[in-house]
Amino acid sequence: MEHFDDLVAAYRILAEHGVIDAYGHVSIRSPDNPQRYYIARSLAPEVVQVEDIMEYDLDSKPLDERGRESVRERFIHGEIYKARPDVKAIVHSHSPSVIPFGVSKTRLQPIYHMSSFMGVDVPVFEIRDVAGSASDLLVRNARLGAALANVLGDKTVVLMRGHGSVTVGTSIPQVVFRAYYAEMNARLQSEAIKLGAVTYLTADEAAASAKTNDALVMRPWELWKRKVTKPE
Amino acid sequence: MEHFDDLVAAYRILAEHGVIDAYGHVSIRSPDNPQRYYIARSLAPEVVQVEDIMEYDLDSKPLDERGRESVRERFIHGEIYKARPDVKAIVHSHSPSVIPFGVSKTRLQPIYHMSSFMGVDVPVFEIRDVAGSASDLLVRNARLGAALANVLGDKTVVLMRGHGSVTVGTSIPQVVFRAYYAEMNARLQSEAIKLGAVTYLTADEAAASAKTNDALVMRPWELWKRKVTKPE
Amino acid sequence: MEHFDDLVAAYRILAEHGVIDAYGHVSIRSPDNPQRYYIARSLAPEVVQVEDIMEYDLDSKPLDERGRESVRERFIHGEIYKARPDVKAIVHSHSPSVIPFGVSKTRLQPIYHMSSFMGVDVPVFEIRDVAGSASDLLVRNARLGAALANVLGDKTVVLMRGHGSVTVGTSIPQVVFRAYYAEMNARLQSEAIKLGAVTYLTADEAAASAKTNDALVMRPWELWKRKVTKPE
Amino acid sequence: MEHFDDLVAAYRILAEHGVIDAYGHVSIRSPDNPQRYYIARSLAPEVVQVEDIMEYDLDSKPLDERGRESVRERFIHGEIYKARPDVKAIVHSHSPSVIPFGVSKTRLQPIYHMSSFMGVDVPVFEIRDVAGSASDLLVRNARLGAALANVLGDKTVVLMRGHGSVTVGTSIPQVVFRAYYAEMNARLQSEAIKLGAVTYLTADEAAASAKTNDALVMRPWELWKRKVTKPE
Repeated sequence: MEHFDDLVAAYRILAEHGVIDAYGHVSIRSPDNPQRYYIARSLAPEVVQVEDIMEYDLDSKPLDERGRESVRERFIHGEIYKARPDVKAIVHSHSPSVIPFGVSKTRLQPIYHMSSFMGVDVPVFEIRDVAGSASDLLVRNARLGAALANVLGDKTVVLMRGHGSVTVGTSIPQVVFRAYYAEMNARLQSEAIKLGAVTYLTADEAAASAKTNDALVMRPWELWKRKVTKPE
Repeated sequence: MEHFDDLVAAYRILAEHGVIDAYGHVSIRSPDNPQRYYIARSLAPEVVQVEDIMEYDLDSKPLDERGRESVRERFIHGEIYKARPDVKAIVHSHSPSVIPFGVSKTRLQPIYHMSSFMGVDVPVFEIRDVAGSASDLLVRNARLGAALANVLGDKTVVLMRGHGSVTVGTSIPQVVFRAYYAEMNARLQSEAIKLGAVTYLTADEAAASAKTNDALVMRPWELWKRKVTKPE
Repeated sequence: MEHFDDLVAAYRILAEHGVIDAYGHVSIRSPDNPQRYYIARSLAPEVVQVEDIMEYDLDSKPLDERGRESVRERFIHGEIYKARPDVKAIVHSHSPSVIPFGVSKTRLQPIYHMSSFMGVDVPVFEIRDVAGSASDLLVRNARLGAALANVLGDKTVVLMRGHGSVTVGTSIPQVVFRAYYAEMNARLQSEAIKLGAVTYLTADEAAASAKTNDALVMRPWELWKRKVTKPE
Repeated sequence: MEHFDDLVAAYRILAEHGVIDAYGHVSIRSPDNPQRYYIARSLAPEVVQVEDIMEYDLDSKPLDERGRESVRERFIHGEIYKARPDVKAIVHSHSPSVIPFGVSKTRLQPIYHMSSFMGVDVPVFEIRDVAGSASDLLVRNARLGAALANVLGDKTVVLMRGHGSVTVGTSIPQVVFRAYYAEMNARLQSEAIKLGAVTYLTADEAAASAKTNDALVMRPWELWKRKVTKPE
């Protein structure tokens, strides 16, 4: 199934670019049934294969467990798919340049057109507000997933304090593009801030640019997919 | 044709060194007709081949389209070739260390001899001045290209706020050298600024050094070209 | 012996990830005799093989020298194994992002769940307090090793001013995980500090998260081990 | 000749580690005649081979030119060999993290034992003091080389404002070690400064540590040499 091939490719692409480490994950909503989603079993992203993909309902209950271990934080995915019918693909990562923005008061903002999809407000999910100050920081149940989805609102990215971030999109190529350029933006914004006052994209620029970029997400996708699927 | 081989090599070299990502481009003015230029079709730079090169007039109208998709921002190239008869090769990139200088008041300046070609003034193109504050930031028509060429003036590099930069030169090896060392200078200048007051090259040092370096651009070029064209 | 294979893999994994350079080392307490430990002879980590592993008593006297040269700083290992019966594996590294925290007053603290094992206090060993201000900074005898073990106390990481750090754990996979994420945390914390005030993990969050992560250390370990042991 | 193999390996090792780019060079004093030195012809370091090595007298006059182009800055080497009979090997590089220290008032200082060879004073050569403010910054004649050697004095490293640095030693393995760790120190010191006041090595610590390290330079050298000389 092409969707599964793309999902496997997404895991590998994001691992190769350092967006996800051994603990990130990618999911897609089922193209056949919007009440279902697919995500890999608990496994290092670089080695995910089609047979590692599991199916879940939107309560994040596995439908074809067959002895495979589910990722603990699948509720991130299920609850966002519930709250956001427009979302078809989700990435959860600990992408390194984004982490510092989740623990400081400096907001992540688009400094160039490639990250215009972020708009002018990237919210931060403070798990202490829901789980108190002694949690293990994982979104390990539906209640926490719903709280995260609530902070995400209608945005494309939400940061998770002391943990990572979540990026959503309408397709795998788009969400991979977004996860990659969220990381790039964080790196560049951090450097730019050290140089002095920064001119960010206006809301209108971000909106116009995001629309343009949506038509161009296949260019890196095809390159990236080719690189992770070529015979060794 | 050797010029096409060099153009293809330039795409790959700049991609390999992280100067261009999936969206940058390189062009050459036609050696036979100064009213024509060559640039690759809309494609990820790493996979560009000779058959992807298209010919344009200086209004950026494709002359041999054959169903191939033109890059939207080809007007950067056409308008600079119009305004600058001395320019024979152009690189447009989103090279990461340069981006922060395009969005802050800190000017890019040469901190070492390798980037002396920048001289002591690297201008910044603010697209809002021409396209207003709701553009998608792309140089998508001749009017924006001409405005960019105007800000470039007689310099070698122009930064584009919230977008990237353009480097020009008299040959492919030289413009690739310049695009590479503009990125390096940005990285080193950013670090130097954090250490305190910086001694930059004087205008005279920059001019003398740029002249010297022009005689040395083939040394990295030959190495870089060999690396991207060796059989796999 | 599986323990030896894992120990060899640990050297290579840490070298591949830039946690140890040509001078770091990893040891394990003997699973058969808690009064013994194993560590490689004086050799660059990347090329360590099973035959390079030597056995020591807790006074760091080699038991099977066979002409092989011991690492000078083995006393780090022997003295910590003496002082900390719970410790089964130790990494000593010069991991680059951690070094700056050893020479400044800024304390290393967990900014995300992956480094929760550090707790809220990472002590710094100032060798001048024991060896005076003219030492070569190496922990080259039992007295210095014991002083270092004393500063480590019941923690998981201790920084060494002007030198590096030591990470301890209950297994090789866990100590490799810890050495890797101590380096990552240092890199991210340094970036976060530049963005403004940082929200660190609370002591309770760190404790809860460390417990969770302990159950997940095999996920990166299996991936990492596979990569360094695959046939070339 | 083993010395030539080591010299070729040095070029490749330093290129592989990013210490020299297309323009750096390494030389050795002739083991047979202290009035002679060897350095590669003008060529990218990564591709240097034994047949590219040329012989010079201490006035930097080539003795076996055979149509090969000399590097312009060979006077760095000749004049230092004249002034410093103890020096047997020299590296000139544009190593990136060191450049910022050459253009700011912040002095390069050892923050850890690996860079103790720098001692507590790394001088900076300001070419303007000798060549005026309109030079091309290259050490292109004996007068400039002698001025640089004079600023180096009896030290191991000298920075060159707006250009790069020179590292000297008593053997190829040692000078390669030093050039590598000078770059590492610059990177780490820059990060440490951003964290606040830094505790540097004392002069006595630096001296004791440098003596210890001299006995250990073969450990990385053997690894590095193996990696650049293995059959492809």
